[in-house]
Amino acid sequence: MEFDHVTLGQRVRFGTNRAADNLVAEVDRLGAKRVMVIASRHEAPIAEAVTAGIETGVWHDDVAPHVPIAKAEHARSVAAEHDVDLVVSVGGGSTTGLAKAVAMTTGLPIVAVPTTYAGSEATNVWGITESARKTTGVDDKVLPTTVIYDAALTLSLPVDLSIASGLNGMAHCVDSMWAPRTDPINQVLAAEGIRALAEGLAVIKADPRNLTGRENTLYGAYLSAVAFASAGSGLHHKICHVLGGAYDLPHAQTHAVVLPYVLAFNAQAAPESEKRIAAAFGAATAVEGLNTLRAALDAPRALKDCGMAEENIPEAADLILPVVPDSNPRTVDRESLEELLRAAHAGKDQW
Amino acid sequence: MEFDHVTLGQRVRFGTNRAADNLVAEVDRLGAKRVMVIASRHEAPIAEAVTAGIETGVWHDDVAPHVPIAKAEHARSVAAEHDVDLVVSVGGGSTTGLAKAVAMTTGLPIVAVPTTYAGSEATNVWGITESARKTTGVDDKVLPTTVIYDAALTLSLPVDLSIASGLNGMAHCVDSMWAPRTDPINQVLAAEGIRALAEGLAVIKADPRNLTGRENTLYGAYLSAVAFASAGSGLHHKICHVLGGAYDLPHAQTHAVVLPYVLAFNAQAAPESEKRIAAAFGAATAVEGLNTLRAALDAPRALKDCGMAEENIPEAADLILPVVPDSNPRTVDRESLEELLRAAHAGKDQW
Repeated sequence: MEFDHVTLGQRVRFGTNRAADNLVAEVDRLGAKRVMVIASRHEAPIAEAVTAGIETGVWHDDVAPHVPIAKAEHARSVAAEHDVDLVVSVGGGSTTGLAKAVAMTTGLPIVAVPTTYAGSEATNVWGITESARKTTGVDDKVLPTTVIYDAALTLSLPVDLSIASGLNGMAHCVDSMWAPRTDPINQVLAAEGIRALAEGLAVIKADPRNLTGRENTLYGAYLSAVAFASAGSGLHHKICHVLGGAYDLPHAQTHAVVLPYVLAFNAQAAPESEKRIAAAFGAATAVEGLNTLRAALDAPRALKDCGMAEENIPEAADLILPVVPDSNPRTVDRESLEELLRAAHAGKDQW
Repeated sequence: MEFDHVTLGQRVRFGTNRAADNLVAEVDRLGAKRVMVIASRHEAPIAEAVTAGIETGVWHDDVAPHVPIAKAEHARSVAAEHDVDLVVSVGGGSTTGLAKAVAMTTGLPIVAVPTTYAGSEATNVWGITESARKTTGVDDKVLPTTVIYDAALTLSLPVDLSIASGLNGMAHCVDSMWAPRTDPINQVLAAEGIRALAEGLAVIKADPRNLTGRENTLYGAYLSAVAFASAGSGLHHKICHVLGGAYDLPHAQTHAVVLPYVLAFNAQAAPESEKRIAAAFGAATAVEGLNTLRAALDAPRALKDCGMAEENIPEAADLILPVVPDSNPRTVDRESLEELLRAAHAGKDQW
């Protein structure tokens, strides 16, 4: 057993219909006087309800996906102009990301109130897009001081997006088992994330307004982000990143399709992880657990349905092979990788 | 699901026979120039080996159990005199505790290198003894910046002490399931701690120099401390604290005897925790798992063998009843508590 694990210090306040009260408690605890609220225009009603109990200094709704540099600079200048002492973000990954861009240069603390299952609020990773190129980095300054989770806020997320976002979290958990910086701590958090996401997503599918389903999904998404930020990108994320970039495939669907094939590929070479994942699903095998969930969720099953042409498979393998992590438990050669991609392309049950 | 969880930020470097190299890396990373090494005289050889690769400013071996205030003040004045910029502690709970006493008033960072399974290195709890009274408190300043775990260093701990120390960690894990501030995150870390401690302790008993057994025990003890510091004292610790104080019973043995009875008492009222604990032991039930381990370890089985008189049971119940945590999953009344204590006193298998 040999590892180097960094636990990021953060407070999590978790409670359904408790966001406004928890925010009052946090603003009080931090002694903040001039709060900048970041929320996109369409989430303004949620943000108003969440911040009803605190004094807000300035509101900022100039939010866009992937944090364009101009938006980051705009938000930073607003923070400076108003001599802000706390940033409160209410929203999904883009909103949290903009708050992080502000914290990065100003050192301001963030209280993040997520409304999706994106998970960015639990990591010290930032991302900024300039000239259509996204740069990402790691800086402890951007880790929110506190995250306030309220499952009721995620009711605004439609079922299909909820499931896509939750399955993205599931992919983070599964891939954390064999990612480059994985360790036993990441693995146990990832296994708990799988358990919670599997329970939560099945309930959301059957009963979208069920708050227990939303709570489990939100809790699982939090754990998936903690585990993934620490463990790094494994084989699954490398494959999806290449496919998404080269063939312009939809992000969430690509993850949902590819994950069971990577799991099946690695499971035999990672028996301990396989057992943990199976136990987390409450299934006989890890693959069976994931496939049962995927069927219950009507998740997409084949890359051919996501817009990828079969003839691109050899080229995709060319692009993926150089980025396969050394940590992967099973050796990835051209033949096995093409076989994996062909199976995922066709949506095969057995391969 | 409602909780308020504080994750303490800390780096853990875990590696057998890697302590000296990991300490070099940490001193380098922290940019420390004037290191104070705290280690008791009898651990000086271990401390010398661990610090072989770094420049040490001042050595301090004036360590005593429970951190007497005079020892704390002595260590603080040595730190000030030598303008120290990092404290490195090598030893068990008393040594880590002294380093914390220094950090508490000076704000100096600590790199802790534990040689036992005490777990203090993973918490923000300090303790200082003045006029035979121990005061404890919580302060983030005393949390070691980094913990360096090296299972080889724990080989110096005799088997009986290793098992007593490890079972203390086991009690932290089990009691974390229903302690006042428990939450799902504490519970999943505690369950992993139970798994690792059960595996590790059985191996240490059978083969004391087996490093895999030592690694699992050290890893489990770390998790037990993280979970317990966050969750607080549950019913088990309240009972043991009262019995130890009122009847001068030996600490570790009392824990080993009482734990299965508290587990059996609470298990029926906490079915989710019961299932998690059973799964962690790989046993059909939680109680069966713990009893199997206890038998394998030849752990003490009855309070009567620890020096407690049967006629003290009603008085003990008087003392325990007012301190039973409100969070306990099963109501504790006089009758059930006396029954529990009588069973533990006699060492009954069924009750």
